[in-house]
Amino acid sequence: MIPIAILVGLGFAALLTRDILRRDTGSDRMREIASSIQQGARAFLRRQYKTIALIAVALAILFAIALGAQKGPLLGLETAGAFALGATFSALSGYIGMHIAIRSNIRSAAGSLKSFNDALVIALRGGAVSGLSIVSMSLAGVALLYYGYGALGPAVNPATYNTCIGAGYTVAQCTAQATEDSLILSIVGFGFGASLVALFAQLGGGIYTKAADVGADLVGKVEAGIPEDDPRNPAVIADLVGDNVGDCAGRGADLFESTAAENIGAMVLGVVLFPYFGIAGVIFPLVARSFGLVASIVGVFVVRAREDESPMSALNRGYIVASVLAAILFGFAAWAMLQPSSPTASGSLTWAYYWVCGIAGMVTAVVYVWVTQYYTEARYRPVREIAKSSETGPATNIISGFAVGLEATAIPAVVVSIAILFSYWLGESTGIPGGGIYGTAIATMGMLATAAYILAMDTFGPIVDNGAGIIEMAGMPESARKNMDKLDAAGNTTKALTKGYAVGSAALAAFLLFNAFLTEARVKAVDLAHPETFIGAFMGGTLVFLFSAYAIRAVGRAAWSIIKDVRDQFRENPGIMAGTSKPDYGRTVDICTRSALREMVVPGILAVATPLAVGLIFRFVKVTYVGGVPIPTGEPLGGFLMVGTIAGVLMALVFNTGGGAWDNAKKFIEAGNLGGEGSPTHKAAVVGDTVGDPFKDTAGPSLHILVKLLSTITLVIAPLLT
Amino acid sequence: MIPIAILVGLGFAALLTRDILRRDTGSDRMREIASSIQQGARAFLRRQYKTIALIAVALAILFAIALGAQKGPLLGLETAGAFALGATFSALSGYIGMHIAIRSNIRSAAGSLKSFNDALVIALRGGAVSGLSIVSMSLAGVALLYYGYGALGPAVNPATYNTCIGAGYTVAQCTAQATEDSLILSIVGFGFGASLVALFAQLGGGIYTKAADVGADLVGKVEAGIPEDDPRNPAVIADLVGDNVGDCAGRGADLFESTAAENIGAMVLGVVLFPYFGIAGVIFPLVARSFGLVASIVGVFVVRAREDESPMSALNRGYIVASVLAAILFGFAAWAMLQPSSPTASGSLTWAYYWVCGIAGMVTAVVYVWVTQYYTEARYRPVREIAKSSETGPATNIISGFAVGLEATAIPAVVVSIAILFSYWLGESTGIPGGGIYGTAIATMGMLATAAYILAMDTFGPIVDNGAGIIEMAGMPESARKNMDKLDAAGNTTKALTKGYAVGSAALAAFLLFNAFLTEARVKAVDLAHPETFIGAFMGGTLVFLFSAYAIRAVGRAAWSIIKDVRDQFRENPGIMAGTSKPDYGRTVDICTRSALREMVVPGILAVATPLAVGLIFRFVKVTYVGGVPIPTGEPLGGFLMVGTIAGVLMALVFNTGGGAWDNAKKFIEAGNLGGEGSPTHKAAVVGDTVGDPFKDTAGPSLHILVKLLSTITLVIAPLLT
Repeated sequence: MIPIAILVGLGFAALLTRDILRRDTGSDRMREIASSIQQGARAFLRRQYKTIALIAVALAILFAIALGAQKGPLLGLETAGAFALGATFSALSGYIGMHIAIRSNIRSAAGSLKSFNDALVIALRGGAVSGLSIVSMSLAGVALLYYGYGALGPAVNPATYNTCIGAGYTVAQCTAQATEDSLILSIVGFGFGASLVALFAQLGGGIYTKAADVGADLVGKVEAGIPEDDPRNPAVIADLVGDNVGDCAGRGADLFESTAAENIGAMVLGVVLFPYFGIAGVIFPLVARSFGLVASIVGVFVVRAREDESPMSALNRGYIVASVLAAILFGFAAWAMLQPSSPTASGSLTWAYYWVCGIAGMVTAVVYVWVTQYYTEARYRPVREIAKSSETGPATNIISGFAVGLEATAIPAVVVSIAILFSYWLGESTGIPGGGIYGTAIATMGMLATAAYILAMDTFGPIVDNGAGIIEMAGMPESARKNMDKLDAAGNTTKALTKGYAVGSAALAAFLLFNAFLTEARVKAVDLAHPETFIGAFMGGTLVFLFSAYAIRAVGRAAWSIIKDVRDQFRENPGIMAGTSKPDYGRTVDICTRSALREMVVPGILAVATPLAVGLIFRFVKVTYVGGVPIPTGEPLGGFLMVGTIAGVLMALVFNTGGGAWDNAKKFIEAGNLGGEGSPTHKAAVVGDTVGDPFKDTAGPSLHILVKLLSTITLVIAPLLT
Repeated sequence: MIPIAILVGLGFAALLTRDILRRDTGSDRMREIASSIQQGARAFLRRQYKTIALIAVALAILFAIALGAQKGPLLGLETAGAFALGATFSALSGYIGMHIAIRSNIRSAAGSLKSFNDALVIALRGGAVSGLSIVSMSLAGVALLYYGYGALGPAVNPATYNTCIGAGYTVAQCTAQATEDSLILSIVGFGFGASLVALFAQLGGGIYTKAADVGADLVGKVEAGIPEDDPRNPAVIADLVGDNVGDCAGRGADLFESTAAENIGAMVLGVVLFPYFGIAGVIFPLVARSFGLVASIVGVFVVRAREDESPMSALNRGYIVASVLAAILFGFAAWAMLQPSSPTASGSLTWAYYWVCGIAGMVTAVVYVWVTQYYTEARYRPVREIAKSSETGPATNIISGFAVGLEATAIPAVVVSIAILFSYWLGESTGIPGGGIYGTAIATMGMLATAAYILAMDTFGPIVDNGAGIIEMAGMPESARKNMDKLDAAGNTTKALTKGYAVGSAALAAFLLFNAFLTEARVKAVDLAHPETFIGAFMGGTLVFLFSAYAIRAVGRAAWSIIKDVRDQFRENPGIMAGTSKPDYGRTVDICTRSALREMVVPGILAVATPLAVGLIFRFVKVTYVGGVPIPTGEPLGGFLMVGTIAGVLMALVFNTGGGAWDNAKKFIEAGNLGGEGSPTHKAAVVGDTVGDPFKDTAGPSLHILVKLLSTITLVIAPLLT
């Protein structure tokens, strides 16, 4: 089943790519603009990957040596190999997503010259290439390692073996479980490799896109008084490039690592259930993901819009089809695979218990999407409140938007809590030891089942955003512009929804990844009453705040370098503003690339180094002795991981929601409310929108990845702490 | 020693009050203004206390019934009684602080007509009345209950008795320890009563002061174009009233409850050490506090400034004297009281181990003060960076200021972590079981030793702020204005430092109060690997975000009602702007009072209801069974408390530091840098300053109290969870 799904996924991605590439590319002027965007995006990615590769290789060597010295060369090499594969696949995912996006944008724009449906379908299918190939590759990577390392014949993990024997199982059962455990341990590096690349991709891309956006706006709209996407602005191409490198490459890597990390975490927990489900429990996550992939493909193909239809209702139709189909297939997979070999409290209905866990995860996804809409759409109270408070100036706009962001943490936190508690309780009710946390793992799988479709909707956003920019810059007719603007608005919505979805899945996955860490680090309890653990927890929360500070500041600094360059260009060449000569787009793109890459290094290193430092420090610093024995070495790191995750999820919600709400409050005023465009109220709302930019597109998305990176890095170093 | 210190403290407060009241009150115009401020402040406090009293009485009855039903009527009544006393004393502290502040302001202003030193000394002594009476009353309350309830003859706590007997001590020893334990349990209500009043006082006062400030600025400076403190602005008196009700009454109640909660928490932990130190270990916190009070009195009396001296260096001289003296007296108290009756690893040097813990706390206080200065003073990089980024407009100013606030969490978090770890390790090294956490408790005592002096410096701030306003409004000569402006600037610094100090002590006290809760709730471990505990922790973090949202939004809403009223007054009576008729100050004060009180209710109730709800829900919802037994009922609440505390401390640091840095970036520009006053850069910086107002004076300080309220409320309900 798994290889078939991977082949189907990749096959459809190839098919869609061929279909898209055959489409019309519009006028020469359009092609010229699109080619500038392509060049800028490719140049950025090339340089960015070079920087990331250096860091990744250094870390791979470090882990190979450290794990090799501690646990034998085989585990060291296998982990390093898995890490390298994860990093490569993650980079490849980002590259594919962007590669097709920078080709779909112009074709969607050209489609809009003919019909609204053409533009919509091309953009969504462009996004689907990204979604399908990313999910397929994440699946392929884990499966490849699982079967590849399995063929190499992994060692038996003695600790797991002894626990198993102690619980009264047979030697054969325990040997199988302990072998499985060693195998999974060797592939956790894949998740960390994926996270590492994702973090840098999102950080670098996020800084790039918002620095270009803020820089272009401040110097173009505010100083020079020219409209957005005006070809006279030297930063305008950098701005369009930014959408691709930040949203496509960044979010692609983000969801690649979400699915990869969650697969591996669920497999780690599946090993614990070995006596009941055997290997089926371990590979169930991969099979469930495969079915979700198939459901997403169907969803993409049913989307078709009438000319007068709102694009969101067409996209939602596809989402509903994908979700319902995924739910049915999920049930089938559970029924086929989760039949316990030993007697359980839930008897022959065990599979149904876990199926309901999966459904609970899907419901959580829907609720997240709804809550995100409530807090970021102008139809509801929060955005109206921000718009209204702009009447008394930018300060009250900021105060009110920040309050909305803070408020928006409550419902999502409660919803995730209920989902965790419910799925844990249901899993625990099966009577299988470790069945509770496996229930939570399955809920997370349910939430991520339609990841490929969600990702298609997400990448749809930057494609139509770019398309609208190309139409605007090329001076195309009003009808095309209207079509693209409608799609662009829908793209803003889908981008916001995906962020809500991504942070929700991070929150739900957190608890299962945490338990995977505890399993691997052989930590029984993470007790906050121990001062080391409390301090680990405190440091986890602090890392989130410090990381956010660097991410936000990076945008300010990089934007500053762009503003300086644009001012220089205007001064050096007065023909630009007069419209008689073309600005040097490439120079601005180049400057933006260099400063974004420079600024991404410190927060990136911070994210990797802090968990290593906390783990290392508490290897040596021990103050709590329980019955003369110090607490487990991994325990403070457990506190760090958990509280870092809680703080990261909450902060990401503040940033994403606050940013989205400010954006839409500005759009609400631009639509002619409260004085409309150009009024002092609008000016105040523009300040909020600009503040929200680094919040929602740099700090927020980077925090999702930080949260998952913490899980995967602690999983990798867990064997060092036993 | 304790009653003597209380009498000395109160005696000196009375002496200083007499000295201040005898001073000159300046011109008739000054008296008229001061009397308007007094009326407004008194009216606010009267109404506020009425609202708080209703809530407090309802809670007292609730706790009396709930605890009475569960643990016998004696404990129920005693807890309710202690709660009532704590609430009353806390309210009284706020009242005294404000009562003397609204009399010192005019006298300090009148003093400035004569000499700089007169103005400084009057203002500091006015603040000292507040500091001395608050610390004395906190001490008196706990001592009164301890000896009063002790005389009533409390019950023996059977759980403590059995643990003690199990550890091999004699029946006499264990009876004494179990009696002591019951006694302390009955007085924890005092801390909660104090926190509850402090929370509402700070919330209501904080909303009032910033609504008036923001409202007066937006409608006066921005709309009408008149300077700050201009008598034509109807909101100007409300603004001056706000300084008193927010800063004096609010911070007074805050530090009252800090010292009370910390005393009680340390006493709870002292009971655990009963076999070694007997009653001396339990009452050591009270004795140490008494010595700190005496040291603070000496510190206040040595302050005297030369005419050309900077006020900060005079104030710092007093602080150094108080600190050194406190350190010496602390050592004496430790030597006299902490001599173990059973053999320990540290032998006859046990007292010295704990003395060093106290010194570590004092060092922590100094580091906090230094870090706060670094992040909020224009001499250093962060404020300069914010000022510089104002050149590209308000959006970059906000981004940069927010990044500074986030960054400013790191060093304080590391410092507190080191202090906790070091003092725990030192305490543990004595070899006494429970000695580690007692070491941390003593470090907190060290940090709070000079609380009375710090509080004097803090209340100094609003007194000179008011004084400067009175001089300005009464049109007094330039020399007096210069004297008061110098003091006003120093007052801004001392206010910022006290906030840093308050949040630092909250962080340090958190771990000891958490352990006091675990002791009383009979919870052995707070294990984040249990889903209930994880969810409790998640909810704790979420409460902090939601509470902040309400606190910040409240200011926006209340400010809006003031803006509306001022606009109405300008429209109804054109003579106001012409200077021919006086605005109706009382009407604005009244509107501000009503809206501040309305807005304080929701966040206040939220803070009290959430821990109760979490405690209650997890009494019934149980999903984790360890060996067939559900986890302790109090464990999820422990997770809630701890992660709520971590999030609260970090968020408070962001708000306090961000707000202070924005404020000083604006002042830096006003001092003639980067274009100076009136430039676009300055306008951008004003936006940041306005955003920072509710951050630093409403949300931040309220969060300190929230953190401590969580500790005290969980301590009170702990017996319900055993």
